[in-house]
Amino acid sequence: MSRALVTQFSISLDGFGTGEPQTLDEPFGHAGQRLHRWLFAGEPGGERVTTGIDAAMGAVGWDGTVGAEIMGRRKFGPQTGAWTDAEWRGWWGEDPPFHTPVFVLTYHPRPPLEMEGGTTFHFVDGTPEEVLAQARDAAGGLDVRIGGGPSTVRQFLAADLVDLMHVVLVPILLGRGVSLWEGLEGIESRFDIETVHSPTSGVTHLTFRRRES
Amino acid sequence: MSRALVTQFSISLDGFGTGEPQTLDEPFGHAGQRLHRWLFAGEPGGERVTTGIDAAMGAVGWDGTVGAEIMGRRKFGPQTGAWTDAEWRGWWGEDPPFHTPVFVLTYHPRPPLEMEGGTTFHFVDGTPEEVLAQARDAAGGLDVRIGGGPSTVRQFLAADLVDLMHVVLVPILLGRGVSLWEGLEGIESRFDIETVHSPTSGVTHLTFRRRES
Repeated sequence: MSRALVTQFSISLDGFGTGEPQTLDEPFGHAGQRLHRWLFAGEPGGERVTTGIDAAMGAVGWDGTVGAEIMGRRKFGPQTGAWTDAEWRGWWGEDPPFHTPVFVLTYHPRPPLEMEGGTTFHFVDGTPEEVLAQARDAAGGLDVRIGGGPSTVRQFLAADLVDLMHVVLVPILLGRGVSLWEGLEGIESRFDIETVHSPTSGVTHLTFRRRES
Repeated sequence: MSRALVTQFSISLDGFGTGEPQTLDEPFGHAGQRLHRWLFAGEPGGERVTTGIDAAMGAVGWDGTVGAEIMGRRKFGPQTGAWTDAEWRGWWGEDPPFHTPVFVLTYHPRPPLEMEGGTTFHFVDGTPEEVLAQARDAAGGLDVRIGGGPSTVRQFLAADLVDLMHVVLVPILLGRGVSLWEGLEGIESRFDIETVHSPTSGVTHLTFRRRES
């Protein structure tokens, strides 16, 4: 069965998945790289951790079981409104780490962008249900990752479309930004939640598994 | 040295220390007893847990080291404005669990209420610094607990008066209520933070220790 996954979704203690404002230099705004240091042994731009709980949780969903990705437009890039910068090909260079079709949610559809390594960005408009169905078709029976940002994940949670969600709670207080949790009162009742802290990085990994209904 | 402590301060994943609205039947509003079940083995109104990490963390600050308590008026009771209900003597009955002087923050000072077991409620107006100084005098060299609610703790955090804070992160989403974290961007830099999860209750205990400056 093809599941909808959220993995390595890092938020601050006060629930923000990105800071503000998003710029070309700072995709995560004033959060900088602080939300993701746990994956890089505390070193911005450093090597990924290779051992222990953070490495293990960092690998969830990156073992070939994901066949398509969905992301919000703000995760793809800083442009808003009509696409004026045709040169922009995402934050990740010519060989993005997805290696699958990637469905970018936008009110302004445009032709797909084929990248190296198997990643193709498709620019689609639709409800979460519709876009998930499209991504499932493209995934060929594999899982679909809801890649973010926070408002995209929130939208899929609100529509009850997420089967498995891995949230990483980073003990910092951003104070402002885009919240993962806003408007999601009570959704924990749909999930079994497993919690484990990392003594190395200090983050807490929460795994939400959707209950059989 | 007399420290200012926050202990067993339970919040939801989205940062709320109480739900809404506060009523006589529901001091924590729509949160009910969900924020504090970890301390009662999951049973509302049940016995306190007596073993394991939750019992140990539940005992922090209740070993005779606290000589005075500070609380917000809404923790003392549901009245607002001028004191119209002179019968109200707090949520805790005639022998409250504090057994020390308790300083209730209010814009409407009134004579103290002497209870059984050593608890006396003093109703005081003042800045966090002033009230902490008063409480320290009353504590006779022992620690002072900032007992809550969330906006009172937030006020003392903002004024950088908290030496040790134990926060309990409960994996529920309240969606609304009084936030502990609002307006506290960056305060983690003042603290060393230790995190440990409880496999029994599923909560995460965070201990904030103020850094030597």
